[in-house]
Amino acid sequence: MSKKLVGACIFGQSGGPTSVINASAYGVIRTALDTPEITKVYGAANGVVGILNETLYDMSLEDAAELELLLNTPSSALGSCRYKIGDDDLARILEVFKKYDIRYFFYNGGNDSMDTCNKVSAYMEKVGYECRVMGVPKTIDNDLFGTDHCPGYGSAAKYIATTVAEVYKDANVYDTGMVVIIEIMGRHAGWLTGAAALAGLSDAAPDLIYLPEIPFETEKFLSDIEEVYKRKNNCIVAVSEGISYADGSLVSQANPSQTDGFGHAQLGGLASRLAEYAKTRTGAKVRGIELSLLQRCAAHIASQTDIDEAFLAGKSAVEYAVGGGTGKMVAFTREYIDGKYHCGIAFQDLSCTANVENKVPREWINESGNYVTEDFIKYALPLIQGENTRKIENGLPRFAKLKKVKV
Amino acid sequence: MSKKLVGACIFGQSGGPTSVINASAYGVIRTALDTPEITKVYGAANGVVGILNETLYDMSLEDAAELELLLNTPSSALGSCRYKIGDDDLARILEVFKKYDIRYFFYNGGNDSMDTCNKVSAYMEKVGYECRVMGVPKTIDNDLFGTDHCPGYGSAAKYIATTVAEVYKDANVYDTGMVVIIEIMGRHAGWLTGAAALAGLSDAAPDLIYLPEIPFETEKFLSDIEEVYKRKNNCIVAVSEGISYADGSLVSQANPSQTDGFGHAQLGGLASRLAEYAKTRTGAKVRGIELSLLQRCAAHIASQTDIDEAFLAGKSAVEYAVGGGTGKMVAFTREYIDGKYHCGIAFQDLSCTANVENKVPREWINESGNYVTEDFIKYALPLIQGENTRKIENGLPRFAKLKKVKV
Repeated sequence: MSKKLVGACIFGQSGGPTSVINASAYGVIRTALDTPEITKVYGAANGVVGILNETLYDMSLEDAAELELLLNTPSSALGSCRYKIGDDDLARILEVFKKYDIRYFFYNGGNDSMDTCNKVSAYMEKVGYECRVMGVPKTIDNDLFGTDHCPGYGSAAKYIATTVAEVYKDANVYDTGMVVIIEIMGRHAGWLTGAAALAGLSDAAPDLIYLPEIPFETEKFLSDIEEVYKRKNNCIVAVSEGISYADGSLVSQANPSQTDGFGHAQLGGLASRLAEYAKTRTGAKVRGIELSLLQRCAAHIASQTDIDEAFLAGKSAVEYAVGGGTGKMVAFTREYIDGKYHCGIAFQDLSCTANVENKVPREWINESGNYVTEDFIKYALPLIQGENTRKIENGLPRFAKLKKVKV
Repeated sequence: MSKKLVGACIFGQSGGPTSVINASAYGVIRTALDTPEITKVYGAANGVVGILNETLYDMSLEDAAELELLLNTPSSALGSCRYKIGDDDLARILEVFKKYDIRYFFYNGGNDSMDTCNKVSAYMEKVGYECRVMGVPKTIDNDLFGTDHCPGYGSAAKYIATTVAEVYKDANVYDTGMVVIIEIMGRHAGWLTGAAALAGLSDAAPDLIYLPEIPFETEKFLSDIEEVYKRKNNCIVAVSEGISYADGSLVSQANPSQTDGFGHAQLGGLASRLAEYAKTRTGAKVRGIELSLLQRCAAHIASQTDIDEAFLAGKSAVEYAVGGGTGKMVAFTREYIDGKYHCGIAFQDLSCTANVENKVPREWINESGNYVTEDFIKYALPLIQGENTRKIENGLPRFAKLKKVKV
């Protein structure tokens, strides 16, 4: 676990982007560039796809100040992919690793990416090619197993809570009432939708929250809304895109034929549909709002805690691998020291984390299944703390401009 | 024009909220409270509706620090309305004005509100009741006549430009291409949609922009997208909700029967529909995003320039009226002093500004009708400058908490 291994590294990003995935990229790249054992730092274009087709960037040629701007640049700077690798691909990856003397592989992504990482790690071990493989987690969905929380979640949660608070203010201005349905990402886990409850700290809490963990009942949903609307003449509702009926079928099935590369259904259009139901039931003016891509790319309101932790995850992956570790995903632990939140680092076996989804515990959802509890809020609140200090030019975000020089 | 007039004032807010309408409220209320001639400061609940039904708040009972937080609190703190006044209402308003010795009336709103203001002003003059009436402009749409720009526009433009830049980054991560259609507010004027072009200053400009000023042609729209998509394997498009065909019919006619209190059609659902068209034409993965209410309430990214100017508009209205002026809307002028943008104050006759819409000049739209020119960008850019310094508690916006004590 500490044998010195000298060679090059490849870093790649995979899956849907987040506001802070590039902070992890910076953690990996900066640390790797500063590590003597790592002779060369390659960035893979579009994740594993860039390895397969040998589209690799030489990261040592990037300007240091531009690299640092990755801390506040949303989305995947090196490009991403949604590609499920097969056995042929593993042999090809080995070929590329040998050609460039790759001894370290760092892969930044969610569930599917940790699966990719795990397969590469197992394959390299099987064929006896020494290469240390580390997964760096990211997902706004917060559904990775084996970690207290995931980089990317805190920023998305901060965006959602802030936006819900602002929409609450907006929707309460007229003397005529209104029902607003806000659709939030999360296929199977309600972490993001639950974050809407944090708006309560701005005195602008939504009235009802529906997570995918609880089977959806249209009649209960409408009677919940009706009750709130009659009482307050207004009702703000947060729903997860992934809510489904007791039989497992998605409430949102606008385009069930449309799937992504992993066979997941593409969701959308739910908010408007539920808003129409609510209109028929209450007679209220309604509006459906889909937060769409905005919730995963709004780097302008990224949580500084999340940025710091995302950077730390990348940095820790490199340090751990250089120290001899392999086949792990960087994970976060949580401690409260003198009542103050503190994030620690742990390392989980990739084989344990891959393809297991971490859901909101039932006891963090209220009995009626239409809100989260104080425990949920206590969990999420530390993760949205800290205003970022991004670089602004002309009143607009100054993103990192990478040269991406191909080798 | 300087006769001293002692008495109470009423301030009200009307129409759709903005991120900075409360900064104007603070400008009026703070200045009025500090002005000896103004004996009492009343806030009308839900604009003119609160005058008609005598729901008035005593603003002197508010905590000074809470009032100041209005500078960063989105939406209408006193509540808004969409109510078109009739002749009976004018007599009733006079009755209320007499009862509370109202000698100053400040009304904060857009086109329709300036019309209300103008009617009240004319009526008070006709019946010989001395009351100074001032309109304080607000509209994210920037379509008020007689002013260089409107409070509320700069913040919405900053939100739109920042969001478009972030979505651009997000939509460019995959090796597979994508067409994104972003739907932006603006019924008849393209000021907001044009602001998407500012994202170019973050190196993340949309590829195509369609304003309501140019008759929409579906075939041209699709061939424009096809051309960009073939060339770049990606295409980001900003469209105004109000685009219409040459015959004047709206492209978005999902619910033509649904209208607001002024008979305007409620728009929506356009982005998804256009995205579907683009999918059929290009075969690309597509996504429609509607910025919806978010663009008018995202106070977290309000332009400090806009906040300052919105405050100044409110303050100037009070000072002008106390100095003897009446029947005017506060307007902004623009000067460049040593090349630096400077905003000045002017006063326009309410009768001239009401119900006239200010559109984007044809020469600020490119010949093809699918983008704005450098002149547009030069116009809009100064208005989005300055990061606001809002109060944060628990990582979330701390909005003003008003007591709203009814008289």
